[in-house]
Amino acid sequence: MPLHSEKRLNKLKAQLIEIAGNENVDDTTSGRLVYSYDATPNFQALPEIVVAPRTAEEVAAILKLCGETSTPVYTRGSGTNLCADTCPLKGGIVLLMKHLNKILELDRENLTITVQPGTITKEISDLVEKDDLFYPPDPSSMKISTIGGNLAENSGGLRGLKYGVTKDYVMALQVALPNGELIRTGGKLTKDVAGYDLTHLFVGSEGTLGVITEATLKLIPKPESQKTILALYQDIEAAGRSVSAIIAHKMIPVTLEFLDQDTIKAVEDFAHIGLPTNVKAILLIVQDGPKEIVDRDIHKIAEICRGEQAVDVRLASSAEEAEELATARRSALSALARLKPTTILEDATVPRSEIAAMVRAIAEVAQKYQVRISTFGHAGDGNLHPTCLTDARDEDEMNRVEEAFAEIFEKAIELGGTLTGEHGVGVTKAPYLEWKLGKAGMEVMRGIKQAIDPNGIMNPGKVFADKAKQRMVTVK
Amino acid sequence: MPLHSEKRLNKLKAQLIEIAGNENVDDTTSGRLVYSYDATPNFQALPEIVVAPRTAEEVAAILKLCGETSTPVYTRGSGTNLCADTCPLKGGIVLLMKHLNKILELDRENLTITVQPGTITKEISDLVEKDDLFYPPDPSSMKISTIGGNLAENSGGLRGLKYGVTKDYVMALQVALPNGELIRTGGKLTKDVAGYDLTHLFVGSEGTLGVITEATLKLIPKPESQKTILALYQDIEAAGRSVSAIIAHKMIPVTLEFLDQDTIKAVEDFAHIGLPTNVKAILLIVQDGPKEIVDRDIHKIAEICRGEQAVDVRLASSAEEAEELATARRSALSALARLKPTTILEDATVPRSEIAAMVRAIAEVAQKYQVRISTFGHAGDGNLHPTCLTDARDEDEMNRVEEAFAEIFEKAIELGGTLTGEHGVGVTKAPYLEWKLGKAGMEVMRGIKQAIDPNGIMNPGKVFADKAKQRMVTVK
Repeated sequence: MPLHSEKRLNKLKAQLIEIAGNENVDDTTSGRLVYSYDATPNFQALPEIVVAPRTAEEVAAILKLCGETSTPVYTRGSGTNLCADTCPLKGGIVLLMKHLNKILELDRENLTITVQPGTITKEISDLVEKDDLFYPPDPSSMKISTIGGNLAENSGGLRGLKYGVTKDYVMALQVALPNGELIRTGGKLTKDVAGYDLTHLFVGSEGTLGVITEATLKLIPKPESQKTILALYQDIEAAGRSVSAIIAHKMIPVTLEFLDQDTIKAVEDFAHIGLPTNVKAILLIVQDGPKEIVDRDIHKIAEICRGEQAVDVRLASSAEEAEELATARRSALSALARLKPTTILEDATVPRSEIAAMVRAIAEVAQKYQVRISTFGHAGDGNLHPTCLTDARDEDEMNRVEEAFAEIFEKAIELGGTLTGEHGVGVTKAPYLEWKLGKAGMEVMRGIKQAIDPNGIMNPGKVFADKAKQRMVTVK
Repeated sequence: MPLHSEKRLNKLKAQLIEIAGNENVDDTTSGRLVYSYDATPNFQALPEIVVAPRTAEEVAAILKLCGETSTPVYTRGSGTNLCADTCPLKGGIVLLMKHLNKILELDRENLTITVQPGTITKEISDLVEKDDLFYPPDPSSMKISTIGGNLAENSGGLRGLKYGVTKDYVMALQVALPNGELIRTGGKLTKDVAGYDLTHLFVGSEGTLGVITEATLKLIPKPESQKTILALYQDIEAAGRSVSAIIAHKMIPVTLEFLDQDTIKAVEDFAHIGLPTNVKAILLIVQDGPKEIVDRDIHKIAEICRGEQAVDVRLASSAEEAEELATARRSALSALARLKPTTILEDATVPRSEIAAMVRAIAEVAQKYQVRISTFGHAGDGNLHPTCLTDARDEDEMNRVEEAFAEIFEKAIELGGTLTGEHGVGVTKAPYLEWKLGKAGMEVMRGIKQAIDPNGIMNPGKVFADKAKQRMVTVK
């Protein structure tokens, strides 16, 4: 979407070159095409210019320039997000974080690591584990996603149940504001109540308030050992009950993943690791900690699963087999995506006590709208990924898919849940956001957005929908 | 400070009575006097009316009325805060949370508890422990403080090192806004990225943005066992080094408290539990978890302390003795307060690697300004409580105290720390806040405040200073 006249665009380009250097400003069609879409199906738009600043100061200078010229800014790491958050829908510039990719400091005394936003998440994980430290958040995309993207989306992952999500590990930020100022929030401090919690305001704000240019992350000691089991079920509800029962027995596993039969088949077909494809559901359960405690917990968990009608419980025989299982689970999206031209992955989330009810509701909705929805996800934290296998070229089916998901969101909220557990609002959930927050909540958010980004240059069209979606039913 | 004419005040009173009932509106001098001060020395001001709403809806209606009549609102629990946050400095009404004191739900499946703001913190703790669950935040005032106050201040406590602070346990809020709307944020959800993190914005906002009328708190399984040791030192720096060494060995104790000799003497004189008063410093160290792990950790920690020149390491022989030690530590402020007419307790906080440097700096500053400062605090999380024993009637000394603390704040920030780790900004730290956040950071905060509370009725005079304090030195 061309926003600027050619003359204005040339001037903007010259100014960007002055800030970031000639080699870091690209307005070729091929260069722009690469950043016209992200991992979200069905969204594409060309940016006018792609710029890759080298320092936080350059980021700030670019934001100042964009503010003065009303130029939209879309900050981008690896573009793995699933809500079209990095798609440049309203023209303007894509701000590429590829040069800001340094690990600045590993502080072994304070157990922190300070990184630039373009750092790949897994690099951080791998580096600290060499020192017997641990950075728990592990989004499925961690091998390619950047930490800046994780921060912008407040990414979750497989270890969320025990260890929480990205925001739980952010101690301090440097942020470039739309007015061109650089601020620092927080510190290497467990306790800090000096002012409003701006750190947590920027984390998860999806690039709509500023650009995170540096982050100090909290680390914890690396768990000494870990064990993995698979519990197999011929009854989906029994799997759901097992999840509740484990937690009610005061055990918090690291990972408690659910896969339905469709997902199991797709993953097995993709990864060939010997998953049993003749069962209705699998729970993949991991516990970590001191060896004796892990042994005790895993033994108890296996007993609970058997008591809830698991038809079999299998212990991974080695670390390699456990890793293979985790990798297979992480590949669920890719595995499902091979089956049909278009894959729409959602992440409706409910209190964990409502997992069984939600799985049932998803199946009913799929039946009602005659669409194919597989479900897998982080059952322990109530974060499910109903995944629709469809074809974007079939308009009639796509309409049914949209209605089905609207009903799934409605149901999640009715059960005390939320529209999105870890993927973000972006474009895809924006029309539904008011269902969760209410009009008054949306107004608080709009007030904050207006205060920090008065010209609306930061990731326009995201989080705040041009038009809210009507609810189909009224929730009691 | 009278803000309203008698006629307007009478009208306001009648309207408040209509909302909250005659018995819950008090404008007698004696009734107002009770709420004219809090636990902070040297701040007192009479409110015009004290009102105690019975429901969240009444709170919202009162805020709406106050917005329309530009009446300041000071929300108050037990008034235990230490930064004058509940002192009604600019006239208006004190909003008393005493009727909103119910525990609404203990959810054993999702491990949450939902409470009203007037609930006493320890009631929550005690109730959940009966169910083998655990609410970790434990501010020293927990026997009398309300959870609403803890939420408003984002209170810390003795267990912060391992378990974090109040904000780490808040999953959902109901908040009454200055415009009279009630909103809900979050949910019983580990993962929720639907919109900005308003939950964490309201927590720690010190009553300047809205009134928390309900909170859902996260619980964890209660640790199976715990052990306590005392490490005694004749060298303060050695105590500081022990703190760093314990963490560097990848152990995170629940509690790692530091007491200097002055504090030890005062506490022993107060509690008579046999603390050795002839040592320069004590570390009080607690570890919890499965019994075998606690034994192993405590053994290693004791070894580390001995290696860092602890002159003695003593194990509490029973749960009762351990509890006695923790209670003694919690009484440090009361114990010190007996020694002089005025006690000023601060909570400058530094990264834990800088504890020794900070303790040294505090001693130097006390010497320089010829004031008496004892230091105790949560060494494990870098949160120290330099406590000045003084006399508010001695103007010259009070000036020196103020200068001494300004220099202590400066030093904390220079070391990568903050003005306040857990007590809040309130009135006392407001003039210094810009030192930590910078002008641009303050502007972000002001923008948020203006967006949510455009009439400035919520706790005016707090957090945002009428006049910022000049820094004495420039930090590199």
